[in-house]
Parts: sequence; C-alpha cells; structure tokens
Amino acid sequence: MATAGIVIIGDEILTGKFADENAAFLIGELRALGVELRRIVMIPDVVDDIAATVTDMAARFDHVFTSGGVGPTHDDLTMAGIAQGFGTRVIREPVLEERVRAYWGAKLAPPHLRLAEVPEGADLVYGKDQIWPVVAYKNVYILPGVPALFRRKFIDIRDRFRAEPMTVARAYLDTDEGHIAGDLDAVVAAFPSVRIGSYPRFTERDFKVLITFEGLSAGDVAGALAMLIDRIGPRVVRHEPPSLAGAAP
Amino acid sequence: MATAGIVIIGDEILTGKFADENAAFLIGELRALGVELRRIVMIPDVVDDIAATVTDMAARFDHVFTSGGVGPTHDDLTMAGIAQGFGTRVIREPVLEERVRAYWGAKLAPPHLRLAEVPEGADLVYGKDQIWPVVAYKNVYILPGVPALFRRKFIDIRDRFRAEPMTVARAYLDTDEGHIAGDLDAVVAAFPSVRIGSYPRFTERDFKVLITFEGLSAGDVAGALAMLIDRIGPRVVRHEPPSLAGAAP
Repeated sequence: MATAGIVIIGDEILTGKFADENAAFLIGELRALGVELRRIVMIPDVVDDIAATVTDMAARFDHVFTSGGVGPTHDDLTMAGIAQGFGTRVIREPVLEERVRAYWGAKLAPPHLRLAEVPEGADLVYGKDQIWPVVAYKNVYILPGVPALFRRKFIDIRDRFRAEPMTVARAYLDTDEGHIAGDLDAVVAAFPSVRIGSYPRFTERDFKVLITFEGLSAGDVAGALAMLIDRIGPRVVRHEPPSLAGAAP
Repeated sequence: MATAGIVIIGDEILTGKFADENAAFLIGELRALGVELRRIVMIPDVVDDIAATVTDMAARFDHVFTSGGVGPTHDDLTMAGIAQGFGTRVIREPVLEERVRAYWGAKLAPPHLRLAEVPEGADLVYGKDQIWPVVAYKNVYILPGVPALFRRKFIDIRDRFRAEPMTVARAYLDTDEGHIAGDLDAVVAAFPSVRIGSYPRFTERDFKVLITFEGLSAGDVAGALAMLIDRIGPRVVRHEPPSLAGAAP
C-alpha cells in the first residue's frame, strides 16, 4: 500500500495564529485516494528543522507533502530547507521566472522572483493548470500554506497518487471497553489483515465505544464485523456495514 | 524560554475517523502559559514508532505531552511504547491498581487493570484531582486521547508549566507581500528579539497580508510595529497594539 507523510511548516500553526486546515484536508483526501498516511509533523520556520524533517520523511514514505514557507518574505524558508536537506542549492527556475515576470508585469518587485526559486533538480509537476505547476523534489511535493491555494494545487495533481482504497466498517457498543477487550482480542487474532480500533466516548447519547474495522479485503472486514457481533450480540447497538473509505457514508 | 512538544498517538487521527482536538487545544493552552511549542507529531498505534518519537521529543524539549493510546484494549500501546523507548518495562502501579479496583468494584474485568499499567519509574502527578493523577515519565506527560478527559487532566496540572508569556502585535496590510518584503527585512534586522511573521490571505475583505510581531520584550514588539508603520504608512489598514499572548484580544 502506498504510504505518505505530511510536514506542516510555520510558526503560525504552532503559536495558534492560524488553525491547521491543510493536514486536516489532506487526511480526508489521502484516505479517499487509498494512500496510507503514516505521520504528520508540524514544525517552525527553521531551515535546519525543515531540512532534517523533510529528508527523514522522504526516506520513510512513498509520498511527502509539505505545506507553507513558500513565498517572498524572510520567513519563507521551505525551499532553502529542502535544498539543504538534500545537499543541493536553491536556484531560480527559468520557466517559473517567466511565469512570475508575466504575472506581475510592470508591478514586479525583486522579492517576487523568490517565487521562482526551487531546489536545484526539482521537478515541475503539472495537472490541469498549465501555468502554475507544483514544485516537487524527488518524492516531496511542495505546497503553499494558504489553505485555498493548498487545496487547489493538491486537487490539481491528486490523480497521480490514486491507489486502492480501504474497506471500512463500524460497530457502536453500549458497553465499557474493559468488558469487551477479550472478545476484541479474539477478533484481532482471527483477522490479521483487518486493522481494528476501539474508541471510548463519554459524551455520545446512544453508545459508549466505537469499534472500527478496516482493510483491503472487503470479505475480511465483513468477517471481522460479523465475528464481533456474534460474540457480544446485544451490546452492539448499531453498525455500519463495509463500504469504501472516503466514500460518502 | 520553556519549550514543549506534542505527540498525538492514534490511527484514528491519521485515518480521519476523528479530527484532532487535543493538539489544537494544547496550542492555545501552551501559548497562554508562555511555553514555546516547537513540534507536533501525529503517529499511528505502533510501539516502535511511539518509542522512537517520544524519546526524540523528550531529548529536545523541556516538556512533552502525549495524547492517546491509553486504555484497556489491544490498540492502547502508549505505555508499552514509552517504556520501550526509555529502556524500561511496564509494571502495574499499586496506587493506580487500588483506584481501578475501587472504581469498578464487582464489575471489574481483567482488562481494566491495564489502566494501572505504567512504565517502571513513572511519576504520578497530582493537581486538584487527588484520585486520578497524570502519569509522567521524566518530562513526558501521558494523557488520554478522549478530548474531554485530555482537557480536564491537562487543566488540572497546567499551573506547573506556567512561564513568561509573549507580547504580540499585529498589522493588517492592503498590499502584496512582494512589495513590502524589503521593508520587512529592515524591521527584522533592527529588532532581532522580535519574531516577525508575514501571512498572505486571499479571501479577507479588508486586508491582503497579516504581519505578526512577538517577543518577550513589550518595548521591542512596540518598536518593531512602529517602525513598520513608519516605513509603509498608508498600506497598514489597521493594527492591534502589543498585548500578552493568550489573553482575550
């Protein structure tokens, strides 16, 4: 299964000036694409931190998506961090320079040209938007932090990441986790291909624990759900049968 | 300045079954306490990953807060992960065992006793709640993932983390970032103690860029704000004068 990591770059997130919207958005997108998200890291605008974090993630996962730190001001350090991490330098990319000059025309100021800077060896990845590509360095896709732009640019290139989606099912229980942990262990052991989660909730009206099942085999997911219902019977107040993850419920 | 990191543990966050509420809550709390949040990491329920991530964070920062993976079921692996990371083992803590037995009484099932398991050498940290302490191992505070419990337990012990809060100010500009980047560089150079952020926004009615200033010196923050206003004058459509971070605006 294809794996992914997300790196959210920016003091503004860690200091609460803006709430994260981009990791939250990408969680749902990757899920619907069938890509397994393995790690999210949120870091400040610090070159060494960007360098170390991005290269670590790039080595672990098939795809890495970064958010933020791309722009013309002193706190936009993502390109420098990624270049440092991969042992290359930042260059001005000719195609992007042409786009930037055409866009600002007579209003161009020197800092705008920073928008054409990329790590040397970067790729320009085009979706339907043939003017503004996504900059990628190896398996790292470098996206802007402004949520509207982040979403637009990811959606433009997302089809290249499409994989096999998970099948998921849910059971809602009217019981304490401790009283079904043994039954759950038996289901976990019987269906090793199904990932099973148990989530107590104390503020819901009609259930106390949510059990989730997911896996690539719809048959195994259905089997695990059926085995749990068979074992604990009336304590399952309702359930959602297997369906593809990311589809409307 | 005291520093902190947050580790959010749980497949349910990375797969979008639940949206994160605990990191979002703690960002605001740490801000108001004057603790500098340096990193947030969100990882799955995997012992090796918990072990490596928590020990890495514990070495980097003054305080580390973990969320999730604490409970009686097979997917509750935080205690095992932290114990492995620090090279110790999981033991049943006598005081907690007594609490668990008293709470469940005749309804106690064996899995409930997992709630009394901690890494050997852990501390029990008490706030006002004299019954249920927070479990800590060195500088790692281990909190439950259920948001209502996470908040209650953190609030109960938060006074021990109180430090000196930042002073913050904001300016809202009606201009493009590229056109003020040079002026901003001059302010950044003149006030090295002030951290300055520049955030373009494309969906706001009355401004295009938010500039934020923050630092421990209220005088320097005020000076940096005044210098920017002095240099770019009418492009500042409004501003918020220096105030303590975390206070109501």
